[in-house]
Amino acid sequence: MDKHTRLGNALRGLPVDRPPVWFMRQAGRYMAEYRKIRERVSFLELCGDSDLATEVTCQPVDRFDVDAAIVFSDILTIPEAMGMEVRFDKGSGPRLPAPLRSAADVAALRQPDVADALPIVPATLRKFRKTRPDVPILGFAGAPFTLLCYMVEGSGSKNWEHVKRMLFGDPDTARLLLDRLADMVGDYLQSQIDAGAAGVQMFDTWAGVLSPEDFERFALPATQRAFARVKGAPRVFFTRDTSPFLHFVPQTGADAVALDWRVDMARARAELGAMPVQGNLDPMALFAPPAEIRRRVHRIIDAAGPLGHVFNLGHGVTPTTPIAGVEAMIAAVIERG
Amino acid sequence: MDKHTRLGNALRGLPVDRPPVWFMRQAGRYMAEYRKIRERVSFLELCGDSDLATEVTCQPVDRFDVDAAIVFSDILTIPEAMGMEVRFDKGSGPRLPAPLRSAADVAALRQPDVADALPIVPATLRKFRKTRPDVPILGFAGAPFTLLCYMVEGSGSKNWEHVKRMLFGDPDTARLLLDRLADMVGDYLQSQIDAGAAGVQMFDTWAGVLSPEDFERFALPATQRAFARVKGAPRVFFTRDTSPFLHFVPQTGADAVALDWRVDMARARAELGAMPVQGNLDPMALFAPPAEIRRRVHRIIDAAGPLGHVFNLGHGVTPTTPIAGVEAMIAAVIERG
Repeated sequence: MDKHTRLGNALRGLPVDRPPVWFMRQAGRYMAEYRKIRERVSFLELCGDSDLATEVTCQPVDRFDVDAAIVFSDILTIPEAMGMEVRFDKGSGPRLPAPLRSAADVAALRQPDVADALPIVPATLRKFRKTRPDVPILGFAGAPFTLLCYMVEGSGSKNWEHVKRMLFGDPDTARLLLDRLADMVGDYLQSQIDAGAAGVQMFDTWAGVLSPEDFERFALPATQRAFARVKGAPRVFFTRDTSPFLHFVPQTGADAVALDWRVDMARARAELGAMPVQGNLDPMALFAPPAEIRRRVHRIIDAAGPLGHVFNLGHGVTPTTPIAGVEAMIAAVIERG
Repeated sequence: MDKHTRLGNALRGLPVDRPPVWFMRQAGRYMAEYRKIRERVSFLELCGDSDLATEVTCQPVDRFDVDAAIVFSDILTIPEAMGMEVRFDKGSGPRLPAPLRSAADVAALRQPDVADALPIVPATLRKFRKTRPDVPILGFAGAPFTLLCYMVEGSGSKNWEHVKRMLFGDPDTARLLLDRLADMVGDYLQSQIDAGAAGVQMFDTWAGVLSPEDFERFALPATQRAFARVKGAPRVFFTRDTSPFLHFVPQTGADAVALDWRVDMARARAELGAMPVQGNLDPMALFAPPAEIRRRVHRIIDAAGPLGHVFNLGHGVTPTTPIAGVEAMIAAVIERG
């Protein structure tokens, strides 16, 4: 079975010879090939050049027998396109020096046409498809709520004090920002499908800091609004903390859900029925001995069942992950074919 | 209804006039009284002096109309009693300069009698009971798995790489360490009940980094072993990520569970039946306007039902929390009486 059919069928709940396998952040710092490029170009330069981004996107596809690529980029391209400065200083996470704290701040944002403002990722998708026509490639974007987190807080955070001050004290401004982000996210994902993405994944990384009530009031409607603008390829929803929100997943408008590792696959299958799932190996399991990796991979595959499962980690691969662990995981999936 | 009866009844599922209210880290940096003491003594000095610890334990009880105190201490007193150095350098979390990475490291730990090695907290409990006989006081300890996290990693961590290397690569050493910690934790909690604690809470803060399978293999049996050594007062189990493990809670041996805020109270009640619950307001809700705090407090009380609910935050109060928010929360609980 060719990789296009394997991934496409799994994301649609159709028969496959075995689950397709790819993994979040598969183009990244755990690979020497990636670190070598980063010696000469910054992260932002990499995200801003479709030739370099294509090269990095190809690296894990060339080295491992994965069934899909994911386009190399960053979720903060959207805030940047809306006029915010985004910095990636060495050794720290992203920083937005002028965070949004008021209705006036939100009103001052641009709402550009994504075709004009965000051309790099569609260009990268087209270049990858020419370079590796045998491998399907996925597009992605940050979810509206997760983008709001960075735009309002100005950086990553433990408690997201400014975000929650806005949600709880000025919910109308938060909703207005989420609506504007949802339109950007939806159009951006659609532009990636139009450029040939075999599917798109929305990362709601920080939705897990919300209570279920606040997820339903803020994150869920924004995700629904974004996905409603997207058609033509499977839409995958990811949040880093799936368990508290699993029952909301069927309402997101997603065709499939990427599960983190703090949810039992068998329980997720029982809750979601036939909805295709992705995941859900603990990324730190790749530090285990090969036999233990194999046991964990097969346990997940067995619990997910034969239809509607894309094998993946439950979160991004970490920078110090041993290559041997990655190879053991992929081999354990492939031997199920 | 006096505070002893209100707390004791709520933790046992018996009738109360309204839910009792206290909150995690209620003696802490958000209070000017606490910051003033910390200007002249370090955190470790505070934990090591039962007079100072009693003074700090009393501060929130004197200032607010809470229904319980919780003894001021730190969960890392147990690793210290077992022979590990623990540092609290200004501006960073705890640091253990000689972390445990092998069976030999674990074998070198002391296993002291808690009565000899950990006298400060029982002494503080007795002094508080003399000072404020009208207010019940709770004891606490870190859960074995959470203590293992700090002892093996040597500090807080995002990915807990060394912890997971041990769990997945050398599970026998991890289990031996968990067993030894469980015996210490159990005896320590019992010594606090013997000193007059009205209940004890076990904090498994970091259990939420585990998959449900690993929780069941490592954290759960250690918690069971610890709680099995404790009798005479209600035992409360807390983990910062309740949702993935809610179905395991009835197996922990706890009499009640402290819920974080990423679990809907109504769903928790449906899963746990009559088991007493504590929680579960988002600590950041205290930054909201008073009317919004009140709405959220009442929503939780209504969902929990009239029996077996101790009102609390879903995690510790944060250092920048406004006093007005704390007051609004407590008033909203009291007006339900």
